Amino acid sequence: MTSFKTRRVIRLKDTDAAGVIFFVNYFVFAHDTYELFLEEIGYSLGRIIGQESFLLPIVRAESDYHQMLGLEDEITIVLNVNRIGSTSFTLVYEYFLENQELVGSVKTVHVCVDKTTLKKRPIPEELRQALEQYEKSP
Amino acid sequence: MTSFKTRRVIRLKDTDAAGVIFFVNYFVFAHDTYELFLEEIGYSLGRIIGQESFLLPIVRAESDYHQMLGLEDEITIVLNVNRIGSTSFTLVYEYFLENQELVGSVKTVHVCVDKTTLKKRPIPEELRQALEQYEKSP
Amino acid sequence: MTSFKTRRVIRLKDTDAAGVIFFVNYFVFAHDTYELFLEEIGYSLGRIIGQESFLLPIVRAESDYHQMLGLEDEITIVLNVNRIGSTSFTLVYEYFLENQELVGSVKTVHVCVDKTTLKKRPIPEELRQALEQYEKSP
Amino acid sequence: MTSFKTRRVIRLKDTDAAGVIFFVNYFVFAHDTYELFLEEIGYSLGRIIGQESFLLPIVRAESDYHQMLGLEDEITIVLNVNRIGSTSFTLVYEYFLENQELVGSVKTVHVCVDKTTLKKRPIPEELRQALEQYEKSP
Repeated sequence: MTSFKTRRVIRLKDTDAAGVIFFVNYFVFAHDTYELFLEEIGYSLGRIIGQESFLLPIVRAESDYHQMLGLEDEITIVLNVNRIGSTSFTLVYEYFLENQELVGSVKTVHVCVDKTTLKKRPIPEELRQALEQYEKSP
Repeated sequence: MTSFKTRRVIRLKDTDAAGVIFFVNYFVFAHDTYELFLEEIGYSLGRIIGQESFLLPIVRAESDYHQMLGLEDEITIVLNVNRIGSTSFTLVYEYFLENQELVGSVKTVHVCVDKTTLKKRPIPEELRQALEQYEKSP
Repeated sequence: MTSFKTRRVIRLKDTDAAGVIFFVNYFVFAHDTYELFLEEIGYSLGRIIGQESFLLPIVRAESDYHQMLGLEDEITIVLNVNRIGSTSFTLVYEYFLENQELVGSVKTVHVCVDKTTLKKRPIPEELRQALEQYEKSP
Repeated sequence: MTSFKTRRVIRLKDTDAAGVIFFVNYFVFAHDTYELFLEEIGYSLGRIIGQESFLLPIVRAESDYHQMLGLEDEITIVLNVNRIGSTSFTLVYEYFLENQELVGSVKTVHVCVDKTTLKKRPIPEELRQALEQYEKSP
């Protein structure tokens, strides 16, 4: 089982007047990580939007916050595939501070749809195999 | 039972290159609605951050997307209180298009903490009574 | 001479850990106002992107900050057309607090381009006439 | 003369329904670069906000757009100090595509103010010397 990892530093634009990260930015970080992950497995978002016959819209997103992150905190984001169905898959992003402490997590559920009809369709086999390499039981 | 309602139009900044709203903006809309709701019940966020002895951080957020919103779509956001515990409460935001169609929803769980210790504490009685007016069984 | 006016309240998402509005949000407010203005003069951005043969990209933007805005400050935004050339025009947005104090301003320069070739072209006569109603010498 | 350089890839959140980067994100990129630059010269924003007796608010920002950036375009951002006065300085950020083409630029004017009175004060000598290393005539 492989995980996809990336690092990120909390910047001023990520914070709010309460002095800590504005909660929606956990989702922004997750999507940036998703785009990097897609590139890692050979499916950039630009390629999907521009050239593929399918799209992978998010139909559900959720996040848990265990600890507030502040300006210049540096986190490691660990992405795993949590579940692969016939037409959908779930990604889990875990956010760790430098001391290995889990400070929050995000989950996004993606459904594979035909680009023209927007109806559900099976995940392409090549993409499924790529996702399986990062699968981790919940 | 009362609902808190507000309206919103999808603007260019809310969209992305896939031509529809970027999913995290459902959470941005929810928080803007939360701030208006707090003002409606006499507790502006500025007052809480500046003058109260408690804070109401979000410890969990989730969202479901039923239909993609596009530029200039106008939505009505309906907020209800879904559950009130001793130290936490859950808000539900439902997003409707003009034709009454439910296009998505957001849920945020807030915990009441002491501003100094950041430890959980009971929801102030006056706030609890205000929240109860908007309570709706899930 | 007519001005286009709109109101706005500073929300948590607009602020940063320095406790005041993050400077780029003056530009976000300006563009939201621009979209409302376009609708007022009969040219919604959606109509331009979807149906017209021209686009109006921004080629220059500038902003001056006279006073820091904080959470829940309410501002009035006053838009005027500052200059109309043959293929471009300049919009000025002035931000006032409730006490009429000018707290900042934004200027955006838009150029009219052909949607297919992306080359400069004259501003359509009907749009020019609409803009002229809001013209104000700099 | 030294330049401070960083790289950045345009992500979905940076784009809008017109299919290209939303113009305000040039300013977001500039500020992220500014934060990295401050760290490079030994003055992180967190240190300034938390420990120093001065602040460096932006009093003016401007941007020119020569070419539209799209999803997954990779840019190099080159920061130089353009002017150092007694109480203010100007930073210039130039954005280049991989082919060395200049696609846009941002300028921010910062004023040094006393953290308590918010009145202008001279730039601290140590900071001035650090800035001078990156000075480049306009």
